[in-house]
Amino acid sequence: MTTNCLTKKKNCLNPPLEKPYANDLNQIKLPEVTNDILQTSNVLDIINARQSWRSYSEETLSLPELSFLLWCSQGVKKVTANNYATLRTVPSGGARHPFETYLVVNNVDSLKKGIYRYLALSHSLILIKEGDFSHETASAALNQTFLCSSAVVFLWTCLPYRGEWRYLHAAHKVMLLDAGHVCQNLYLACGAINCGTCGIAAYDQASMDKLLDIDGSEEFTVYLAPVGKLK
Amino acid sequence: MTTNCLTKKKNCLNPPLEKPYANDLNQIKLPEVTNDILQTSNVLDIINARQSWRSYSEETLSLPELSFLLWCSQGVKKVTANNYATLRTVPSGGARHPFETYLVVNNVDSLKKGIYRYLALSHSLILIKEGDFSHETASAALNQTFLCSSAVVFLWTCLPYRGEWRYLHAAHKVMLLDAGHVCQNLYLACGAINCGTCGIAAYDQASMDKLLDIDGSEEFTVYLAPVGKLK
Repeated sequence: MTTNCLTKKKNCLNPPLEKPYANDLNQIKLPEVTNDILQTSNVLDIINARQSWRSYSEETLSLPELSFLLWCSQGVKKVTANNYATLRTVPSGGARHPFETYLVVNNVDSLKKGIYRYLALSHSLILIKEGDFSHETASAALNQTFLCSSAVVFLWTCLPYRGEWRYLHAAHKVMLLDAGHVCQNLYLACGAINCGTCGIAAYDQASMDKLLDIDGSEEFTVYLAPVGKLK
Repeated sequence: MTTNCLTKKKNCLNPPLEKPYANDLNQIKLPEVTNDILQTSNVLDIINARQSWRSYSEETLSLPELSFLLWCSQGVKKVTANNYATLRTVPSGGARHPFETYLVVNNVDSLKKGIYRYLALSHSLILIKEGDFSHETASAALNQTFLCSSAVVFLWTCLPYRGEWRYLHAAHKVMLLDAGHVCQNLYLACGAINCGTCGIAAYDQASMDKLLDIDGSEEFTVYLAPVGKLK
């Protein structure tokens, strides 16, 4: 537990649905997601073909493709009354959705290399820091060097108070189940656009959190998945 | 940790890929899964329409539909060399797949009411005990009475040694992520056949384990999800 009502006597306010960010940051609006993006649309074909991919082509991922993957994994379909919760493309216990999505962009059309954050409420991106972070990411993932050949790495962080606010200690199991929902939708979305991914839970916690400039307590990395076009 | 090599000095044998069962039990072979079952096939339409459903029609689920849901959530596509691991329709860290699937069958065509186990390796079912267990299931799920109106309840148990054998304590996080993968595929598979589901992590551990006649240590309930046709 980090900062729930019981341990720190905070006001029991519903935490924000999205981590705050500086308003002066340039928001990159992501393109609308439509069926035109699908190369394989049949859900059973996609499920049957699902596997973990650790090798990718050098092909660039397009911005509409990235938009599709973000939508399927964390897209917000509705904000409920009084900003209580978000309803998304994936389920989350009590609709808490205690995650933020970060991207290590290596090879995405029209995006500079760097670390971005997905703003799910506005389906847009903000650039956190520019540069080539592929090797640092692979290093923090215990030298799984295949990450360097991905077009983008999805990194999900958990903000535990969002879950603890409602479920206290019981939130911890639920948040991991929820992270699994998110990654599974990424797998299937990848299968629809000739991309591959591989869920990765083996990483050095402190190094990965440092990469994302998060404190490892109020927010910490929980799961990651590189994505690339298939050869 | 329950029975890993470190704590009990067992031989470090790869645990069986599936929980053993009595050979004299009648195996109900499940029908082959084909595209004919799909009422909605488009993966993006299914993802966009996904929501948690807590109300179901009285319509009977067909055996091909149940077969499809089991296949998508835990179906075995391949057994690797030397019976080392299974490759399934969902990912699992190190391909450990530390789960068994039980079903509380309430209203499925050609199946008696009762508790069944899915044998993923042979895509078949065995009857564990016959009877109406809908109310007992709802009671163990902290009186979430809507479970009684479902056609079938999926209950996933975790056999922790399957994961610990490879990952020791690190297995515990991974197994919860993996359970999320499984349930997310069930959500999407339901969306393809006009069914609804709702992942449930709120239940009384001892009561649910007792319902399934499992010991709560070497095997325990980890997640459940009722399924029914939509109104």
